Amino acid sequence: MKAGSVWPTAAAKSRLSPIDPAKAEIVGGFWARRQRVNREKTIPHGFGRLQQSGALGNLRLAAGGQGRYEAAADTGGSTFPFLDSDVYKWLEAAGWELARGADPALTAAAEEAIEIVTAAQRPDGYLNSFVQVVKGGVPYGDLAWGHEFYCVAHLIQAAVAWHRGLGDDRLLTSATRAVAHIDAEFGARGRPGIDGHPGIEMALVELARVTNEERHLKLAERMLGLRGHGLIGPGRFGAHYWQDHEPVRQAATVAGHAVRQLYLDCGAVDAAVELGDAELLAAVRRRWSDLARSRTYLTGGTGSRHRDEAFGDPYELPPDRAYNETCAAIASVMLAWRLLIATGEPEYADAIERAMYNGVLSGISLSGEEFFYTNPLQRRTHRAAEPVDHHRRAPWYPCACCPPNLMRLLSSWHHYLATSDTDGIQIHQYADADLTIGDVRLAIRTEYPWQGRVTVHVLETPNRPWTLSLRVPAWSRSVSGPVARHARRWRPGDSVTLDLDPVVRVTSPDRRADAIRGCVAVERGPLVYCLEAVDAPAAAELEDLAWDGSRRPREVPRPDIEPSMIGVDVPVIDLNAAPRENLTAGAIPYFAWANRRVEAMRVWIPA
Amino acid sequence: MKAGSVWPTAAAKSRLSPIDPAKAEIVGGFWARRQRVNREKTIPHGFGRLQQSGALGNLRLAAGGQGRYEAAADTGGSTFPFLDSDVYKWLEAAGWELARGADPALTAAAEEAIEIVTAAQRPDGYLNSFVQVVKGGVPYGDLAWGHEFYCVAHLIQAAVAWHRGLGDDRLLTSATRAVAHIDAEFGARGRPGIDGHPGIEMALVELARVTNEERHLKLAERMLGLRGHGLIGPGRFGAHYWQDHEPVRQAATVAGHAVRQLYLDCGAVDAAVELGDAELLAAVRRRWSDLARSRTYLTGGTGSRHRDEAFGDPYELPPDRAYNETCAAIASVMLAWRLLIATGEPEYADAIERAMYNGVLSGISLSGEEFFYTNPLQRRTHRAAEPVDHHRRAPWYPCACCPPNLMRLLSSWHHYLATSDTDGIQIHQYADADLTIGDVRLAIRTEYPWQGRVTVHVLETPNRPWTLSLRVPAWSRSVSGPVARHARRWRPGDSVTLDLDPVVRVTSPDRRADAIRGCVAVERGPLVYCLEAVDAPAAAELEDLAWDGSRRPREVPRPDIEPSMIGVDVPVIDLNAAPRENLTAGAIPYFAWANRRVEAMRVWIPA
Repeated sequence: MKAGSVWPTAAAKSRLSPIDPAKAEIVGGFWARRQRVNREKTIPHGFGRLQQSGALGNLRLAAGGQGRYEAAADTGGSTFPFLDSDVYKWLEAAGWELARGADPALTAAAEEAIEIVTAAQRPDGYLNSFVQVVKGGVPYGDLAWGHEFYCVAHLIQAAVAWHRGLGDDRLLTSATRAVAHIDAEFGARGRPGIDGHPGIEMALVELARVTNEERHLKLAERMLGLRGHGLIGPGRFGAHYWQDHEPVRQAATVAGHAVRQLYLDCGAVDAAVELGDAELLAAVRRRWSDLARSRTYLTGGTGSRHRDEAFGDPYELPPDRAYNETCAAIASVMLAWRLLIATGEPEYADAIERAMYNGVLSGISLSGEEFFYTNPLQRRTHRAAEPVDHHRRAPWYPCACCPPNLMRLLSSWHHYLATSDTDGIQIHQYADADLTIGDVRLAIRTEYPWQGRVTVHVLETPNRPWTLSLRVPAWSRSVSGPVARHARRWRPGDSVTLDLDPVVRVTSPDRRADAIRGCVAVERGPLVYCLEAVDAPAAAELEDLAWDGSRRPREVPRPDIEPSMIGVDVPVIDLNAAPRENLTAGAIPYFAWANRRVEAMRVWIPA
Repeated sequence: MKAGSVWPTAAAKSRLSPIDPAKAEIVGGFWARRQRVNREKTIPHGFGRLQQSGALGNLRLAAGGQGRYEAAADTGGSTFPFLDSDVYKWLEAAGWELARGADPALTAAAEEAIEIVTAAQRPDGYLNSFVQVVKGGVPYGDLAWGHEFYCVAHLIQAAVAWHRGLGDDRLLTSATRAVAHIDAEFGARGRPGIDGHPGIEMALVELARVTNEERHLKLAERMLGLRGHGLIGPGRFGAHYWQDHEPVRQAATVAGHAVRQLYLDCGAVDAAVELGDAELLAAVRRRWSDLARSRTYLTGGTGSRHRDEAFGDPYELPPDRAYNETCAAIASVMLAWRLLIATGEPEYADAIERAMYNGVLSGISLSGEEFFYTNPLQRRTHRAAEPVDHHRRAPWYPCACCPPNLMRLLSSWHHYLATSDTDGIQIHQYADADLTIGDVRLAIRTEYPWQGRVTVHVLETPNRPWTLSLRVPAWSRSVSGPVARHARRWRPGDSVTLDLDPVVRVTSPDRRADAIRGCVAVERGPLVYCLEAVDAPAAAELEDLAWDGSRRPREVPRPDIEPSMIGVDVPVIDLNAAPRENLTAGAIPYFAWANRRVEAMRVWIPA
C-alpha cells in the first residue's frame, strides 16, 4: 500500500485513515478535467516559469554556476529569499503527478530540477540558494524574514511525494541532510530558533513518518513550543504577523498572516496526533472554529487584509479589498483535511468542499496557465483608478507561491476523496472516481457539482458488514446531514445513491459582516456564483444593478464557458435607468470569473 | 498688510483675496480652544518629540555633529529619509504661531531649530540630513523615494511663514539656496527630475510670490509638466502611486497615494492662477469633483487603502479599513482653500468645513498631545486580533508627518475664515472672531458648531456700498444656500444674523458605497457623530446594536467631554438580547472619539 499526502503513523491518535492514492483515480467529470489541465498545461507551464523567473537558475548558481542572482521583477530592488520553494513545490506536484501515470516529458523536467537541487546542496547539508549566493553562505542570519526553514519544509514535502508516490529517495536524502543541518544548530541541544514563516513543522512530522526517525518529530515539537513567546520580535507588523504573540496551544483565535497561521496549525495537528497531544489538537480546533465563524468568506477564502496579508478582525470581510490569497485557501484545505482525519468531523470536509470549488479554483484560469494571487469577491474595474491589467490573471508572479501550490494540490486531489476506519469507508468529496480501499472496490459516478446525484457502486467487497458513510453537504436540504450512513453486509453489485439537491439558493450574510450588509449572494450546491459585467444587461453597469426580489433566479446551461456548467440568471433592476421588464443578469460560478473580458465582478448583490 | 498661507500675486487669475492674518483673531469658542491647545500643548510637545525622535539630531549630524543617524523605531531596519520635514513643518507652525503673539519659550525652541537647520546646510546650498549623513552626501540619487525635493518644499513653507508672519528671512535665505541647488541640476537647462512625493510645486509658487523671482514659478511649471510621463518608473505600486501615469492637465480622476495627489494638485492650482492657465485649473477642478463625489468619506477623509495609502476605486469607502490619513484630510483642506480662492465657489468652503470638523480634528486628541495617523470610521476592538494599543492615539509616529501638519494648520486656521474681492467680504468659516479686512472691521459672534446662530457686527466700514456674503453650509435647511448675500451701504453698528439649524440629521449613504449599505449615520450641523462602546447600553456590544427607526434621536449636552458639546442619544435595538424599552446609545462628535476608554467605535449604524 502506498501513502499519500499526510499519512499518520499507526500509533497516531487519529480517527480516520487516508486511502492509498495509487488505488484512487478520478475518471471523469469536473475534477478529471481539472487534473488533466493541471497535468497537461499547468505543470509544464510552471516548469517554463521556474526557468524564466530565475528560480532554477538561482539554484544553479548555488551549485557553482556563473551568472546573476535573479530578483523578482517588481520588488522595488529587494530580492525575495524564498524562490527555491517554488522549485520544491513544483517538484512535489511532479512527484504526485508521475505517481498518477508516466509522462516522459515531465520526468525529464523533474530530473533536471532534481539534479540542480541536489547539486546546489552544500557538503554540510545546507541548502538555500539565496544565502549561498547572495548572503555569502552564512546561514540563519535572518530567521524572521529569510524563509530558510520554510524552503527546507517544501523540500521535505517534495521529498515525501517522491518517496511515497514513486519510491524515489534522492530528494529525501537531500531533505534529511538539510534538516540535519538545522537540527545541529536549532535542535534540543542547539539555540532556540523558529522561522518567520511556519511550514517546517508539518514537514518535519511527515519526515518523521517517512523515515521513522523520532528526532524529526522532536524538532517539530520544539519549534511549535518555541513559537508564541516573542522570539522573533515584532518586525514590521507585530508579533501576531508570524503567530509569535501567544503560545500555539493557547492562542484562542487565528491571527496575523493567514498562510503562516494555517501552515502553523497544520503542523500543530500533525504533531498533536503523533504525540497524542489532545490539548494541542483542541487549541487548533478552537482557532478553526473562530476562523470558520467570523473570518472566512463565502468562497472559503480567508485573510482579508492587503497590508500584512492578515486575517483582520472578526467579520472584517470586505468583498472588494478581500486579499484572500490563493495559498490561504489551499492552506485551509490542508488544515481542514488534517482536522478531518484527526477527528472524523464532517464539518471539515464541508470546509474543504467550499474552499476547493470557490476560493482555491478561482486562483487558476480555466486554461490552467494564468493565476490569481488574490481572490476578491468584488471588482469595480469600471471607472477604477487602476489599470485593467491589475485585475487580470497573470501567467506567474514575482512572489510565485500560489501557482505551484495549486499544482501540488490538484495533483494530489484524489487523496482527499475518502478515508477509512475500522467501521468502514467515508466518502468526503464527490467525483467520478474508482477507489480501492483495503479489500473494497468502489466506483463512484456523479455529475457533481452540476448535478446532485451520486451513485456508489460496490464492485468488490469482503463478506462482512461494514459502513459506507457519505457526507451530506451542509448546503443540502433534500437529505439531512451531516452523514448518510449505510451499514450492511455488502455484496458486489450493490449500489447506493445519494440524491442531493443543488437548487439555487439565495444567501444572506451574517448581520455582523458589515461590508456586505443589505446584499444577497447566489449559491448552488457547493458553488458560489458571481455577476460579471460581460453578463450584465445591455447598457447597464454592474454597480447599478440590484436584486429584484419579486422574481426568482433561474438555472441556465453555460456551455459557452465549460461543458455541463450550470449558470444562474438573476432577476435584477437597473437603478440607473427607466424600469425594464424581466431584466436579468447572468451569474456564473465564482471560480470561472475573469476568463473572458475582465471588467467588474461581484458576488454580493444589493438586495 | 501681512500675507498668510497661500497668497496669490496681484497678477494672479484668482477670484478672491485672502485676508491679512495679522488682523484676524479667533477670540473664543470652539476654534479658540483648538488654537490654544495647539499653542500651549501640541507645539511644545512637538518640539520635544523632534528632539526625541532624532529629527533634530539628524540635522545636527549633518551640521558636523557626532552620533548615530536615527532611524524611525518600527521601520524594520530601514530609515525614513524624510525626517527633516518634521522639523520644517514644526517651524512653519511656530512661525504662524509667533505671528499670533509672542511666546519666549516657543521663540527659544524655534531659534534652536533654525540654528540647527541653517548650520546643516552645505556651502553649496544643498540640505538634506539623510543624504548628507547616510548617503555619503551624493544628492538626488533616489528621486523616487528620497523625498529630497519634498523636504525642501517644507523648508520653503516654513520660510514663507517666517517671512510673511514675522519678517524673519533666515529660513528664506536657506530655502532659496536649497532651491538654487535643485534648479541648477533640474531647472530649464538641467536634466528632467521630479520627486516621488509632490509638494515642492506649491512651495515653489509661494517662494516665487515671496521673492518676486519668476524662476521659482518656472521650476514649478517645469515639474508639473514633467509629471505624468512615467519618468519615475512604476516603483512598487505602479505609476499611479506618484501620479506619474497621466499628465497633470489630463488625468480625469484622482489616483494613487492620496497625500501625493492632493499636494500635487495644490501646486497645480497655485501655478494655474499665477500663470493664468485655465486648462490646468479646470483639470484640478475635474479631479476634485471626482474626489468629492466618489472617494470622500462622510468625515471629509480620503484615501481608503492601507497598502499604498491610496484613494482606491470609486465608492470604495470601507469604514473599518479606512486609511484616511490625517495628512490627506489636511491636504484636502489646503486644496479646497486654493480652489475656493481661485474660483469663489462655496462648495470648496463646505468641503473645508466637513474635513476640518471631522477628518482633520479626529487626528488629534482633545489634550492636544496624542495623534491618529489613520482615521477609520469603525473600529472593532472588541474581540479583535490586534492589541488594543493599535487603536490608541500615539504621542508621535515613526513617520511623523501628521502631527506637525496639524500644528501648522491649526496655527494658521484664522487665515481660512474669510476672503475679500472688489464686491465685498466673504465669510466662509464660522468662529468667534474679530476681523479687519481693508477698511472694514467685523466682530463675528457665534457658538458654532454647537449652536447655529452667527452674528456679524460691522464695527467699522467705509461710507460706500459693499456686499457681505455668508456661506450657507450645504447641510442647512433653514436657510437656502449656498450664500446669503447682504449688499448695502453699511454703517458702523450694523449687524447681520445668520440662523442656521444644526438639527440632528439621519444620513443615508450613496447606494454605490457598498461597505456601508443598509446603515445610517448621525450628523448635526457640520459634525459627524459616532458611537463608542463606552457609551453603549450596559451589557450590549456595539456590533449588536441597530438603529431603531421607530424612535427619534435626541440631543443631549455632553459637558463630560467638552464644555458646550452637544451629543446625540441614538435609539437602538440590541440584536443579541431580549427587547428592552427605550434603549439608547450615546453618540458623540467623531472628532472626539478615542479620548476615553478606547474600544469599539462606529459612525455608520445598521438601520
